[in-house]
Amino acid sequence: MIGLFITFEGIDGSGKSTHAVKLYEHFSHKFGRNGVLLTWEPGGWSGGDLMRELLLHHEWRPWSEFFLFMADRYEHVSEKIQPALSEGRIVICERYTDSTLAYQGWGKGLPIEEMERLFSLLALPQPDLTIWLDVPVEKAMERIKSRKVLDRLEEENFLYKVRNGYEELFLTNSERIKRVSSEVSEEEVFLEILKVVGVFMDES
Amino acid sequence: MIGLFITFEGIDGSGKSTHAVKLYEHFSHKFGRNGVLLTWEPGGWSGGDLMRELLLHHEWRPWSEFFLFMADRYEHVSEKIQPALSEGRIVICERYTDSTLAYQGWGKGLPIEEMERLFSLLALPQPDLTIWLDVPVEKAMERIKSRKVLDRLEEENFLYKVRNGYEELFLTNSERIKRVSSEVSEEEVFLEILKVVGVFMDES
Repeated sequence: MIGLFITFEGIDGSGKSTHAVKLYEHFSHKFGRNGVLLTWEPGGWSGGDLMRELLLHHEWRPWSEFFLFMADRYEHVSEKIQPALSEGRIVICERYTDSTLAYQGWGKGLPIEEMERLFSLLALPQPDLTIWLDVPVEKAMERIKSRKVLDRLEEENFLYKVRNGYEELFLTNSERIKRVSSEVSEEEVFLEILKVVGVFMDES
Repeated sequence: MIGLFITFEGIDGSGKSTHAVKLYEHFSHKFGRNGVLLTWEPGGWSGGDLMRELLLHHEWRPWSEFFLFMADRYEHVSEKIQPALSEGRIVICERYTDSTLAYQGWGKGLPIEEMERLFSLLALPQPDLTIWLDVPVEKAMERIKSRKVLDRLEEENFLYKVRNGYEELFLTNSERIKRVSSEVSEEEVFLEILKVVGVFMDES
């Protein structure tokens, strides 16, 4: 078996965690638990808890936040993702480089090309398939309304920019990134994900 | 008065802290305490303690370590160094970008040009004057022998590479970087520093 790297992307409240777990269970059933790794960014590695704490501890400027995410990602990739892929496992990761481009790039204005240049300098593995769970910003805001957000209007404006970023990424990487609407019921969304994954696996 | 940015560089045990404090006292006496800022990297800003804790908490891979230093530096520069320089103060900083080039570049093999590219992308202020306290590695090892070092031979080899890095930086930036031998007595070293600083201030 050859390693397969699948990422879930989308704005907060789009259902990434829910569907990453469901896909993990689906693959575990099919290939056995040892054949699949479920992980996430930021913080999905041995030192990740302290890293998440640091990220929340301070209102970081965009560049600093970017560097912290990069440190987190480099450890995560080296410690977990790359070894799992080398062993031929399926890796399912919630958020990855597209999140950085959408949030720190489109959302906060850092230069996309420079970030991409760093990704390739570090030889970060590229996902084979990315599932973009797309949900309108208004709907996402409803879903996350229980969470504490300091300024809802500011948050909403920010999420619009991030969603546009994902759309831009999707349009320019349509081979790798597949859009799945997350507006319908959980069951329908997951059926669509299974279809996308099935088509991908049949073709590769 | 126009802001002046002076950095101290050198391998561990070269006397940076001692002489940064002495120069700070010298300038405070001359220009008043409000005219001078004494600071350091990593950690010389409001969130720096947690950052230092994080750096020590884990055996980071070189790239990750580099990113953490960059996050720390970006906050440090934005919060303290840049505002002080804008107010026309003298900033004395222990370790700065040259440390990153010497330690993560020459010491650990990360590409120098790519790191410098990031420094200019972030528009980090360039020091006006850098005092490189140069001390032979054997002497530095004696001075730091009280500190816990896991493998002394490995540490020594590493410091040789770092010292060579400083020499390389000095040779290619001789306008900015002044070498001060730290092999003689503390008093003699400081007299030499005052001479270098005096010449620089007379010329500028």
